[in-house]
Amino acid sequence: MKILISNDDGIDSPGINALANELKKIGDVVVVAPSTEQSAVGHAITMKIPLRITEYYKNGDFFGYAIDGTPADCIKIGIRNILKTSPDIVISGINNGSNTAINIIYSGTVSAAREAAIMDVPAIAVSVASHEAKHFDSAAKIVAQLVQKVIRKGLPNGTLLNVNVPDVPEEKIAGILLTQQGKSKWDDIYEERYDPYGKKYYWLTGNLIQTDNDLITDQFAIKNNYVSVTPIHFDLTDYKTYDSMKTWNLGSLLNT
Amino acid sequence: MKILISNDDGIDSPGINALANELKKIGDVVVVAPSTEQSAVGHAITMKIPLRITEYYKNGDFFGYAIDGTPADCIKIGIRNILKTSPDIVISGINNGSNTAINIIYSGTVSAAREAAIMDVPAIAVSVASHEAKHFDSAAKIVAQLVQKVIRKGLPNGTLLNVNVPDVPEEKIAGILLTQQGKSKWDDIYEERYDPYGKKYYWLTGNLIQTDNDLITDQFAIKNNYVSVTPIHFDLTDYKTYDSMKTWNLGSLLNT
Repeated sequence: MKILISNDDGIDSPGINALANELKKIGDVVVVAPSTEQSAVGHAITMKIPLRITEYYKNGDFFGYAIDGTPADCIKIGIRNILKTSPDIVISGINNGSNTAINIIYSGTVSAAREAAIMDVPAIAVSVASHEAKHFDSAAKIVAQLVQKVIRKGLPNGTLLNVNVPDVPEEKIAGILLTQQGKSKWDDIYEERYDPYGKKYYWLTGNLIQTDNDLITDQFAIKNNYVSVTPIHFDLTDYKTYDSMKTWNLGSLLNT
Repeated sequence: MKILISNDDGIDSPGINALANELKKIGDVVVVAPSTEQSAVGHAITMKIPLRITEYYKNGDFFGYAIDGTPADCIKIGIRNILKTSPDIVISGINNGSNTAINIIYSGTVSAAREAAIMDVPAIAVSVASHEAKHFDSAAKIVAQLVQKVIRKGLPNGTLLNVNVPDVPEEKIAGILLTQQGKSKWDDIYEERYDPYGKKYYWLTGNLIQTDNDLITDQFAIKNNYVSVTPIHFDLTDYKTYDSMKTWNLGSLLNT
């Protein structure tokens, strides 16, 4: 089994190391990851400037390839120009911090896995639910099990799994739940500050407003120490609104 | 009616100018847009560095606010710190080049409108289907009509409209169609080149593989000179796969 690993925290992050160490027990691992942290870049891709591929060594050993681009770039160039063929599965992570509810939209980790799904490769995004995550190893073990399940069961083309793991020791994990994307959102605050030259600047911060209160959602599941597994896709059509808009008589707008 | 306008081509692009000129006939327009081109940045947001707000003058007249960030940043800071209240509607565009099918995922134009939808503000993303678009004015007129329709009819919270307009004179437009996101995708190619120092670099290019052949899709509609209007949302859950995964017995992965 050929496994392509990427992330958005950068190739020298501990999360990607834990993932590579665990997954090489079950397959041939190739790491292609951003050379620097790329959190919250969403599904950005690099078109206006070129990319470079740099071999990356960890403790003197060859570890993988660093790309001076985004997570989605890493998957594209990793499959097209490094592997030159599709891997059996792509794993993105392990991210430092959860990617649940609205954060799925902003996440570079999820976007790397989504780029794989766009290329018809099964993919899993994995995050540990703490920005100072301590338990990458137990998350990596669960992912290794899930990889084998996905390979056996298969995923439809265009579908990826978004996995969030609570940052607790393995024995404290309450279970693994199949979930849906939650509805919790950020209450954004731009802090106003002044630079040394007296000019104003704005720094984004805020609070996640927890509106999810059912174990059917990713956000509430991890709050209750469950591993959350959400199948997501990139068909953004809102079919319910599509149906209701059939009465809008859009064609008439041309002649007004 | 208060209208917030943004884009991803940058505040000095002709598309945003055409949009602002047309929409100021039907409401109070505020422009908050990136200071530089931000194409294909997806739903990136800026968290690691601060943002600045710069008043922007066009032909000596005050035109809006330039932000040294992404399209999604512009909507967040535009609503939170410039308007300090929600506008009645957000319009993003007019983009130079279509945003149909898979391009919705990569688009900064769509992401600006999507950020508004996340903030429960009705929103429309508008693109003209040519990278050297000539007919921004007819697209702007259609948008002005659609804005009034959206205000009358309302959109559900979390839903935005993705509008693509063929780059033809108004009288050549075949009609306006309610559509779904198409399935056409890119066949990516990274061109391998050498810099003046003999080092290799890679530049993304490729061809859009047109697999859509039904007027029900955005991509085929614009190819046939129809204006395409697609309702999209940010609930990425793949409910069909969710249902089929209920038999996966995910909980058992913990004990293996």
